[in-house]
Amino acid sequence: MTSRSVEDHARAVARLLGPALTPHTESVAVAAALGRVLDADVHSPLDLPPFRNSQMDGFAVAADSVRAVPVTLPVSATVAAGSAGPARLVPGSAVRIMTGAPLPDGADAVVPVEDTEPTAGATTDTVTVHRGRASGEFVRDRGGDVHAGELLLGAGAVLTARHLAMFAAVGAAELPVRRRPRVAVLTTGSELVAAGNPLRPGQIYESNGIALAASLTTNSADVVFAESSTDDPDQFRDLLRRATESADLVLTSGGVSMGEFEVVREVLTPLGGWFGHVAMQPGGPQGLTVVDGVPVLSFPGNPVSTLVSFEVFARPLLLRAAGLAPVHAGARALAGPLTSPAGRRQFLRGRLVDEGVRLESGPGSHLVAALARADVLIDVPADVTTMEAGENVQVWPL
Amino acid sequence: MTSRSVEDHARAVARLLGPALTPHTESVAVAAALGRVLDADVHSPLDLPPFRNSQMDGFAVAADSVRAVPVTLPVSATVAAGSAGPARLVPGSAVRIMTGAPLPDGADAVVPVEDTEPTAGATTDTVTVHRGRASGEFVRDRGGDVHAGELLLGAGAVLTARHLAMFAAVGAAELPVRRRPRVAVLTTGSELVAAGNPLRPGQIYESNGIALAASLTTNSADVVFAESSTDDPDQFRDLLRRATESADLVLTSGGVSMGEFEVVREVLTPLGGWFGHVAMQPGGPQGLTVVDGVPVLSFPGNPVSTLVSFEVFARPLLLRAAGLAPVHAGARALAGPLTSPAGRRQFLRGRLVDEGVRLESGPGSHLVAALARADVLIDVPADVTTMEAGENVQVWPL
Repeated sequence: MTSRSVEDHARAVARLLGPALTPHTESVAVAAALGRVLDADVHSPLDLPPFRNSQMDGFAVAADSVRAVPVTLPVSATVAAGSAGPARLVPGSAVRIMTGAPLPDGADAVVPVEDTEPTAGATTDTVTVHRGRASGEFVRDRGGDVHAGELLLGAGAVLTARHLAMFAAVGAAELPVRRRPRVAVLTTGSELVAAGNPLRPGQIYESNGIALAASLTTNSADVVFAESSTDDPDQFRDLLRRATESADLVLTSGGVSMGEFEVVREVLTPLGGWFGHVAMQPGGPQGLTVVDGVPVLSFPGNPVSTLVSFEVFARPLLLRAAGLAPVHAGARALAGPLTSPAGRRQFLRGRLVDEGVRLESGPGSHLVAALARADVLIDVPADVTTMEAGENVQVWPL
Repeated sequence: MTSRSVEDHARAVARLLGPALTPHTESVAVAAALGRVLDADVHSPLDLPPFRNSQMDGFAVAADSVRAVPVTLPVSATVAAGSAGPARLVPGSAVRIMTGAPLPDGADAVVPVEDTEPTAGATTDTVTVHRGRASGEFVRDRGGDVHAGELLLGAGAVLTARHLAMFAAVGAAELPVRRRPRVAVLTTGSELVAAGNPLRPGQIYESNGIALAASLTTNSADVVFAESSTDDPDQFRDLLRRATESADLVLTSGGVSMGEFEVVREVLTPLGGWFGHVAMQPGGPQGLTVVDGVPVLSFPGNPVSTLVSFEVFARPLLLRAAGLAPVHAGARALAGPLTSPAGRRQFLRGRLVDEGVRLESGPGSHLVAALARADVLIDVPADVTTMEAGENVQVWPL
């Protein structure tokens, strides 16, 4: 059985998955774009505001006509938001105007309603203005927020509610966003039982499918297929064929190690798959195949091995394909000593604490409750066998 | 028109919305629980692992029988993962065993396959062991990860992929999670046009519905209704009736100020609604009504006013209802001076920079592009009219 370092396998995975995870742009409705990554610079198709309008409910006037107050002006018209209103202000008059309504030509200020007093005569409607306003006051200029052609937001931004408000305001119906990678999940193992069924002797509950699907969703991939197979090669082959039909990438779990009944290895090796040992713990047995043009990344079946394999080999590539920032490792002081086998890069489960990082459990790849309590992976290099409390170690946020 | 401080209105809003946003628990499938808030302590229904099993592909033996090596043992059976296997190890023999398969009684160690050599005789299957293993080596004890009855996770946790892996592993089909608040969004304004249509004079594109829906989603509320009404009271009344049918809470935008054609105020005041001025900018005109037992929180219609109102009055209550941590304000140094009107608490749009926080725009409540660039609200108290660069100011993360 061949053997590789983590770095060598990561490179092989990147090489095979690269074409499948090439970035693509797709259009989505603005209302559906929350959290998506903008995939092109977007410029405004129009001025915002699209027309000069009133910032207040009040009276549009020529500032000159309210220089001396109090002054009473005839009200020549009323303009509500959404109506076109009069094209011009009759000189020496006022136009009753609502917030957001277009300012008639000839008006250059708005007197808020609270600074006025309505004085309706028998035949004419008039208003008395108690406080004058300078030219431009309470007027929003066309293009005061955005000019047509101006860059609204650059490629790479993760879209928030505020961004969507802006795009909606300029009338954008759809936005160019990075297409999410489409990933199929196929777990294997004759010992697996779905929740809700009793466990017979030797059986355990299926958890890798749920864990991988949730990890994919967390990392902005779309889960397009999720099934579990027994160790029967025909069933696995059939499910794999269906998985490759819709996915950019297939993740499998289980069936990759040196024992017998290793369905993934047995089915994929004749198709040209690489199956071997990667010098890491957990997650030693790994596989990598291209089936009908679709890369199949095969993780071992222990729940912790599966999730650690995902973090190490799949997550960095998926984040890059999704246009998202990579996860950054950082150095932390160990809260206690640790030992690690020689020749294997060890990914221990840890938890950040005041003193640095604490081991959350032993190395067993079946300890899912301990993994659930962890918030980082502690990355112990292959050539390190012991570390003391206080020594710095690399940690990867989960 | 009545007037209130921000604090008074926030208290009134909390009083009216409180009963509608009372926390409820609901059950969801484990696979659908990613990101939800666990709403009860969950204990394990079983031991994990549920039975003593092998950590490796290899041979289950009595450690005593491999004390002196090399030693050749008859292979009495083979047990794969998922099969019940033999109840007992025949003394002096080995059982070929796969990772995860149950250990027969009488076996207390597993010799990994790489430390053995298969030696099939004419009539018997035998294995030669080259390296002994102590009792317990490569054996996973029943309950070694979790004991039945043990607390798996406490109420209040936000569920991650790792948590779901753990819950799936103990066979949980559903989880008790905090029900998300169900919120209806009803925007108003005869000037509003949906994206994809040309703007006629005086019209603007509808953006508040998209912005409020996205803000609700961001804050773990479910948007159950989203419509836009003209300023026609009958249309608004009809949409409002439909909004209240399915929602815990209705948010409206527009139609609340002192002008004419203020449809929200006109329809809701006769139903006992409070409409008045809150001493803040943006967002001065506000409304609060209970319609058929459903609270209706009415924001002004300028896009920035709408979103700031949401942040100030709705978001804290929604986060609490969803079981999530509140947003914490922090003090930052101003990168430049600012002025603010007396008597109004000002929520300016700002951006965090190396020197502290920088104003992102003027105070205009129509500046949506500036809001899109902001990442905090700068909270200037009502009695403050000028601040200098370097002075500390409260900022709220958006």
